[in-house]
Amino acid sequence: MTEGHGDDIYRYSGLVKVNFSTNIWQYPDLSALKRFMASKLDFVASYPEPEPYSLEHRLADDIGIEYGQIMVTAGVTDAIYTIARNIAAGRRSGIVGPTFAEYADACSAAGVVYDYFGDAEEAAVKSDVVWICNPNNPDGRVIDAGGLAALIASRLSVMFVIDTAYSDYCRAEKLDVSTMAGHDNVILLHSLTKQCCVPGLRVGYLTASAENIRSLRRHRMPWAVNALASSCAEFLIDNPPVIPVDMLLAESKRMQCAMAAMGYDVTPSATNFFLGAVPCGSAAALKEWLVSRHGLLIRDASNFAGLSAGHFRIAAQRGDENDLLLDALKEWIGKYC
Amino acid sequence: MTEGHGDDIYRYSGLVKVNFSTNIWQYPDLSALKRFMASKLDFVASYPEPEPYSLEHRLADDIGIEYGQIMVTAGVTDAIYTIARNIAAGRRSGIVGPTFAEYADACSAAGVVYDYFGDAEEAAVKSDVVWICNPNNPDGRVIDAGGLAALIASRLSVMFVIDTAYSDYCRAEKLDVSTMAGHDNVILLHSLTKQCCVPGLRVGYLTASAENIRSLRRHRMPWAVNALASSCAEFLIDNPPVIPVDMLLAESKRMQCAMAAMGYDVTPSATNFFLGAVPCGSAAALKEWLVSRHGLLIRDASNFAGLSAGHFRIAAQRGDENDLLLDALKEWIGKYC
Repeated sequence: MTEGHGDDIYRYSGLVKVNFSTNIWQYPDLSALKRFMASKLDFVASYPEPEPYSLEHRLADDIGIEYGQIMVTAGVTDAIYTIARNIAAGRRSGIVGPTFAEYADACSAAGVVYDYFGDAEEAAVKSDVVWICNPNNPDGRVIDAGGLAALIASRLSVMFVIDTAYSDYCRAEKLDVSTMAGHDNVILLHSLTKQCCVPGLRVGYLTASAENIRSLRRHRMPWAVNALASSCAEFLIDNPPVIPVDMLLAESKRMQCAMAAMGYDVTPSATNFFLGAVPCGSAAALKEWLVSRHGLLIRDASNFAGLSAGHFRIAAQRGDENDLLLDALKEWIGKYC
Repeated sequence: MTEGHGDDIYRYSGLVKVNFSTNIWQYPDLSALKRFMASKLDFVASYPEPEPYSLEHRLADDIGIEYGQIMVTAGVTDAIYTIARNIAAGRRSGIVGPTFAEYADACSAAGVVYDYFGDAEEAAVKSDVVWICNPNNPDGRVIDAGGLAALIASRLSVMFVIDTAYSDYCRAEKLDVSTMAGHDNVILLHSLTKQCCVPGLRVGYLTASAENIRSLRRHRMPWAVNALASSCAEFLIDNPPVIPVDMLLAESKRMQCAMAAMGYDVTPSATNFFLGAVPCGSAAALKEWLVSRHGLLIRDASNFAGLSAGHFRIAAQRGDENDLLLDALKEWIGKYC
């Protein structure tokens, strides 16, 4: 696996006042979920279902697809690794990047050859399996649903893996899950972590045609999803936390503009998070300065394949917190550039 | 994965008075653990460590091995699948059986060819990787530690995977974990589920030489262990629940003798669980009769490769509960055989 994922706040215990390094809304009201968990602690004493049938049925009903078109996994990462292991020998992966490192890491672990491509069309021409994070991490780039659906329909021999983890953090139209589950050449990844702001639980799921799900289920191990995680997920279907998406998107836009005006190289983003680059020095130096001087944690994005030593990622938080970061970023550029 | 694992109590909700189908002690005092969990519910809102470093350090210290000689996994099943994926192309697995189905299932999923063998020596002669569950599930067979260590030392080109999940449920001498971690041809699997009676958590670990651990860690995905599970595991290192092993072993022996006297074909076992076979009819019929007439759930063991339709597995419980089962088994054999 790749070293240096986001939200490495555990490395800076006590230092961090505001965490801009994770893409997930950090202030959800999880009090009802915690009360629910407190009532379910007996879970430790029983095996979970060997496969999470109950949760799969609940999710399928909620989404409006068949039970045979869904597979629950221990987070989206587990889904990515399971898909990579299911790729037949000799088939090449094309990853639309720069993007989340796990698609490449999972392909490597499974012995699947992969290349990075700057756009989805080129990847589809030159690969058998195309991985697209949409909206994309780390830059918030969005391929519109219509264009994506047309590409999928035009390349029936290519398998498209679309990671929709951040689709609740932007206002772009989404691919229709039920329609997509009718196609044999697309798998959608869904993240409960991001949808419900519960990164500690490790629950995600994928939706695809019944034939693809049958094939993928053969690669999963029993008892993969912790029993508490599974029942929390059922609770969250009925009680999703509210994410203030419009506020986050407005703040993200405001920060992008302000930072561009300061002289940072900002990549326009349609989501709550976005990519910046320092005009001098390195993202690593900026990150260390921000956390040690101001207690503000950003994501050094230089380890994303295809990005430079100057790239960093920021997720917008609440207005006053964002002001703290903007002030600090202005101070830094004045001092060091 | 194999359908029909033990502890399928979730299929019989409301019906089961006593569950003999799981090998784990079912009445541990987990009240301190639950209080601890209730104080840790904020875990849902943060990512776990990408790899469970903290828990690995704590376990290594507790066992007296190096940090580089341990790898925490999402239960022993995850360890089994990770090992199978790490087996080089062309190397054959030998599984000492009949035994837990996951060794074979994990090999199948990873594309590794395997055979079953009746004893470990033969498996070691004819295979590159030998899987031994010791004590063995489902029959409670134990290979003594001295004999096993000698076999490992005599076959340096063979990798031995020894699943010690049930070693706390018998009084046989154990392999020394620290000594074994000095050998490059043995991996020991350890189950927190069984040691601490917490099947719902999904935490296990494996110990091996630093070189083998380095190689296995390359196959693990980030965030594999749920954050609550990880901190519970640390709590349990200091506060392990008490398992009344001597009582369970005495009850197991008593039941084995009583059932043999009734006419069941009992395989002698050194653990709390053991294998029986019906003298007529099928284990499936016996299981359904026991659960529907008496609310007693046993494990139909006919789906273990190498066992017959007549085989079932029983784990001894408390004396009065065992008496209920013995009475029912006597009634059944009188009625149907």
